[in-house]
Amino acid sequence: MATAPSAKLTPLLKDELDIVIPTIRNLDFLEMWRPFFEQYHLIIVQDGDPSKKIRVPDGFDYQLYNRNDVNRILGPKASCISFKDSACRCFGYLVSKKKYIFTIDDDCFVAKDPSGKEINALEQHIKNLLTPSTTHFFNTLYDPYREGADFVRGYPFSLREGAPTAVSHGLWLNIPDYDAPTQLVKPLERNTRYVDAVMTVPKGTLFPMCGMNLAFDRELIGPAMYFGLMGDGQPIGRYDDMWAGWCMKVICDHLGLGVKTGLPYIWHSKASNPFVNLKKEYKGIFWQEKAIPFFQSVSLPKECSSVEKCYLALAGEVKSKLGEVDPYFIKLADAMVTWLEAWNMINSPGEKPAMTSLPNATSKK
Amino acid sequence: MATAPSAKLTPLLKDELDIVIPTIRNLDFLEMWRPFFEQYHLIIVQDGDPSKKIRVPDGFDYQLYNRNDVNRILGPKASCISFKDSACRCFGYLVSKKKYIFTIDDDCFVAKDPSGKEINALEQHIKNLLTPSTTHFFNTLYDPYREGADFVRGYPFSLREGAPTAVSHGLWLNIPDYDAPTQLVKPLERNTRYVDAVMTVPKGTLFPMCGMNLAFDRELIGPAMYFGLMGDGQPIGRYDDMWAGWCMKVICDHLGLGVKTGLPYIWHSKASNPFVNLKKEYKGIFWQEKAIPFFQSVSLPKECSSVEKCYLALAGEVKSKLGEVDPYFIKLADAMVTWLEAWNMINSPGEKPAMTSLPNATSKK
Repeated sequence: MATAPSAKLTPLLKDELDIVIPTIRNLDFLEMWRPFFEQYHLIIVQDGDPSKKIRVPDGFDYQLYNRNDVNRILGPKASCISFKDSACRCFGYLVSKKKYIFTIDDDCFVAKDPSGKEINALEQHIKNLLTPSTTHFFNTLYDPYREGADFVRGYPFSLREGAPTAVSHGLWLNIPDYDAPTQLVKPLERNTRYVDAVMTVPKGTLFPMCGMNLAFDRELIGPAMYFGLMGDGQPIGRYDDMWAGWCMKVICDHLGLGVKTGLPYIWHSKASNPFVNLKKEYKGIFWQEKAIPFFQSVSLPKECSSVEKCYLALAGEVKSKLGEVDPYFIKLADAMVTWLEAWNMINSPGEKPAMTSLPNATSKK
Repeated sequence: MATAPSAKLTPLLKDELDIVIPTIRNLDFLEMWRPFFEQYHLIIVQDGDPSKKIRVPDGFDYQLYNRNDVNRILGPKASCISFKDSACRCFGYLVSKKKYIFTIDDDCFVAKDPSGKEINALEQHIKNLLTPSTTHFFNTLYDPYREGADFVRGYPFSLREGAPTAVSHGLWLNIPDYDAPTQLVKPLERNTRYVDAVMTVPKGTLFPMCGMNLAFDRELIGPAMYFGLMGDGQPIGRYDDMWAGWCMKVICDHLGLGVKTGLPYIWHSKASNPFVNLKKEYKGIFWQEKAIPFFQSVSLPKECSSVEKCYLALAGEVKSKLGEVDPYFIKLADAMVTWLEAWNMINSPGEKPAMTSLPNATSKK
């Protein structure tokens, strides 16, 4: 195979990163990613009917969890994991034993840069995560840690060490990540602009985090990467990644962690149905008008010195402040607490209860 | 001439924008800008020896002010205008009668985009100024008002109207705008990366504003665009644009105005001498460590509902808070007040005292 020689070099963080993929179908899309993914471990979270057999191309090292596995491993706490919504992907974050996570949707393919070269999205995410962020002051020449760039005149020297990077948010060529109303109004719009930049989302600024092409440091921010209650039995969908992004950003700001967005691009192949999406998003369109001011003004107590403590405090704030907007937020706040309990159960440093359960999931090496 | 046919179309904001150029030499650099600038009015601020004759290429419509003109027009208030430093450019903002200003250094040439096309920097600045900013929420696909782009999923609809744009900060290919220490360490670094994006510097975030390639709405933010006391007789240089940028940003944030950075690029031809620069910047390197936290935390009273009121309040804060850092800031705070008085004198809506003086400056149509 053409890519074999270089692909066989040991890739960055090979044993420290899991690739999490939520899916309801055969994972043929992995063929295109083979040169970039095949040496990493995959965690596949099968959504929907657990009796359906998902085909994974040969040669990948993976563990596949369906709803039965989720229920068995988490017991009553499985209630916090969404069903029939890509929000279920966060179960993969929970059971990972690695420091880093890269998560990608199964309708995302390898994009090309303007020179025609295939983009190794994972490698770019890793570079983003392994270099600091510039959270406290904006650098006009973008990422100052990138080769050929630096801090510009007037950038305070005391801030040039930057902040540890917790999250790397990648973008999409072809089908942009639009909401249903925008999809309806601009059905033909395609993103063709390759912006060759990585930048830090400044402290105090919220952004819409998309889960399609996303990487993060699980040790730094993992417990905050809960994708909420969406899909089956819930009044809302397609706000899973947004919810995680708002919670995560507020906590990163509080803890002095960095969040980057920009490169890498993936090729987003297919627009989802705008009518179906409108149904899912409908309530969210109203609720986000309340949720954004809430997240913009929420402040976490100084004592919250860990992600876990921050997340618990945030769940309390959600319950008391957003609970007034709709009872859904009370349920969501409770699920945030359940998620945190599940996280601690599976990831408690002393014991490894998850490990005893894991072999029962479909595994292949 | 090759560019003649298209150049003769009436360009955007032809009668509403002045181009301000501070200089100490003949303006041969204008030849390259002829197709883009020749229909606009230029305000040339001659720095240094007023007896020196500056040559301006034929065919440009300009007014040239030297130090004698500054002194005659402003009288005792001329003390706020720096001498032997490009900070003197702000005199041009003062005497302009237009709504918009574009300012450019005389070592900046026309850059080319990746396709090889010459970039009309002024046109891009105008587009930036005439479309809103996204100050309250970060859009991951950059400028949502640009053709082919929009707000992404999760961007609150109530914020999509954006904020009026007060400032457009352009970038530089070739010689990056580095401070003296970085110039010394990386003498050969060149900026070759064309990042095809315009973005809003979010509310609450400061950035290093460079005066080399800058446009702004004089009616919205003019009185805050004072470039401070630099150069001859002052303990500091090369912080003129930074100072203006920090003051301006704090006031824009208070008044709900937007600031953009990114496109357009100009070609910055020549690195200045890093040893000379270090001498000028030396005190600033220490002072900015105090100034940045000051600007990050300063808050303006609610009653400050105009740029003028904000600027006066800010001058007071500078005097009381930064005056402790060095007596220079007391002098600077006083100069900020003098600048504001000069601004009001020249720009008072009732009378036009400046107009009686202006014809004495070197003028050519």
